[in-house]
Amino acid sequence: MSKTTHYDVIIIGAGPAGLAAGLYAARDRYSTLLLEKNGLPGGQIMLTEHIENYPGYEKVGGFEFVEHMKTQVTNFGATIMVNQAVTKLTRGDDLFVIETNNGEKTFTTQAVILAPGSDYRQLNLPGEASMRQATRVSYCATCDGAFYKDKEVLTIGGGNTAVEDTVYLASRFCKKTTLIHRRREFRAQKVLVEELYDAAKKHNIDVKLPYVPVEIVPTADGDEIDHVKIKNVETNEVEELKVDGVFIFAGMVPNTAWLGDLLRRDEHGYIPADPVSMKTCVPGVWVAGDCRMNAAMQLATATGDGVIAAMGLREFFRDPGAWGAKPCEDENGAGY
Amino acid sequence: MSKTTHYDVIIIGAGPAGLAAGLYAARDRYSTLLLEKNGLPGGQIMLTEHIENYPGYEKVGGFEFVEHMKTQVTNFGATIMVNQAVTKLTRGDDLFVIETNNGEKTFTTQAVILAPGSDYRQLNLPGEASMRQATRVSYCATCDGAFYKDKEVLTIGGGNTAVEDTVYLASRFCKKTTLIHRRREFRAQKVLVEELYDAAKKHNIDVKLPYVPVEIVPTADGDEIDHVKIKNVETNEVEELKVDGVFIFAGMVPNTAWLGDLLRRDEHGYIPADPVSMKTCVPGVWVAGDCRMNAAMQLATATGDGVIAAMGLREFFRDPGAWGAKPCEDENGAGY
Repeated sequence: MSKTTHYDVIIIGAGPAGLAAGLYAARDRYSTLLLEKNGLPGGQIMLTEHIENYPGYEKVGGFEFVEHMKTQVTNFGATIMVNQAVTKLTRGDDLFVIETNNGEKTFTTQAVILAPGSDYRQLNLPGEASMRQATRVSYCATCDGAFYKDKEVLTIGGGNTAVEDTVYLASRFCKKTTLIHRRREFRAQKVLVEELYDAAKKHNIDVKLPYVPVEIVPTADGDEIDHVKIKNVETNEVEELKVDGVFIFAGMVPNTAWLGDLLRRDEHGYIPADPVSMKTCVPGVWVAGDCRMNAAMQLATATGDGVIAAMGLREFFRDPGAWGAKPCEDENGAGY
Repeated sequence: MSKTTHYDVIIIGAGPAGLAAGLYAARDRYSTLLLEKNGLPGGQIMLTEHIENYPGYEKVGGFEFVEHMKTQVTNFGATIMVNQAVTKLTRGDDLFVIETNNGEKTFTTQAVILAPGSDYRQLNLPGEASMRQATRVSYCATCDGAFYKDKEVLTIGGGNTAVEDTVYLASRFCKKTTLIHRRREFRAQKVLVEELYDAAKKHNIDVKLPYVPVEIVPTADGDEIDHVKIKNVETNEVEELKVDGVFIFAGMVPNTAWLGDLLRRDEHGYIPADPVSMKTCVPGVWVAGDCRMNAAMQLATATGDGVIAAMGLREFFRDPGAWGAKPCEDENGAGY
């Protein structure tokens, strides 16, 4: 039999959005639990080497930043449990019931703040999965860059991460870095694109536009990449590129598949919410951070989301009828 | 003749929202100017002794925090001009025109981010204005608390600031601090209310609920407060309180009166905007921070606002037709 533990508020995910929500909930003296699926809190931001765009920090490491948030939240009395991936969230008669994959306990709560964040998007190329298994395909330069000292890599993508991490890989580790993107223009911030072309003067960076990856071809023994096929989308010409590793920077997928039927999601898996209050259609459930539909996907906006969500708790707990309110059943989410 | 200076983006107000917007605009390599009416950037946060609720900082002084933001923004190339209160913002044929009270220059720009923040709300009690002039009525404990060493003060209000600053005044300076609030319950966060009652065990704090202030009565020479009349709203009984100073913590008024006809405001002066994008009804104008309708009025949400507003610039500058778009003329602001 599993033991049931109750909290006023349970926050699912202890990334920046969840931690910010936890800070405000704990400051308001709600018994607050954060459930984190990974072994450490912090989410994606743990993988960021240097943060320079969080207002108030000129420069801070992702790990250090998360340590500050963790201390801040636990100092105010919130509990963070790690290695607890939520597998089920249901609405009971008068409480929400939460189960995790670390299944000795069941949790109950009156209020839920969903902040499960997002994960790396895969391209599902032929060879991608097998070469990921062989640790030759990666989605995180900070994590795996050091494996490619004096090697050659292909980087794929057009956003901030693709451009930034191409520079990072080329300037720190790789003998040669080839960046391909399917359009002629990058989506990345101009300052980062400038840094890319500046870096290309000093380091061995080859920027190929507009190119898409076609296939990652393993060696005969399947241990390494033999070559990658890439295609010029204007000429349709296919080239073979000899590389040791591939870094795919194709954005994120929200971690909401486990949610079941309780809440509606858009076609990408993002959860709709009122952007003023972060309320979802289900009374007592808020959403914050990168898994929210229309989220700006920045560190500063994720923490803002978390703060706003937690600020809604007081109103919710003041009104005894709030729990019983009927979840909206409109397919279109009553305006959001 | 005044000189005209052009910037891609002009941000009105260099508080946390404006500075966060400036950070993102400058990182995107727009020529960016922040116009600040005060002699220093930072806005209201400069008056905060310790910040403990900004995610990522366990504890930081307001001044220190603003220094970090200022350095961060100017390092990326933005210009901050102080003592520049904007008096006029008009939409010309193909640019916005901005005039300030420091009138040697006129500024033109394609994009405006409004982040003028808010100011202290006055209660307009008899005697309030004259005693403010005589520096016996204050709206900021951090600014004026030290003047009341071993004196007696009255504090008025029920929100976070009222409760927090009553403790601050009582524990640091005052011989006696009386807090009145018009309701039986505080609006402040519970953790702060607990701190108030804890502090009342050690310091001379008298909490009187539910009371309203009626009049601030000066001495015959008008230099000091003789007494303050306060009324119990349940019994209607009026009491006279002998105090040396009065601190009024009655919230904020948005600094938007100078805006003229360009943009609609709600009855309190807040500017409506799309909460997803921070866009106002006028193409090329965004709003961020405490003067936005429905803003959450927290440091973390003000910076989030600023980031979101500045992230809209790229889309705006990509579309040459955006400038010419017709401002919405709907009295109800087309949904926001």
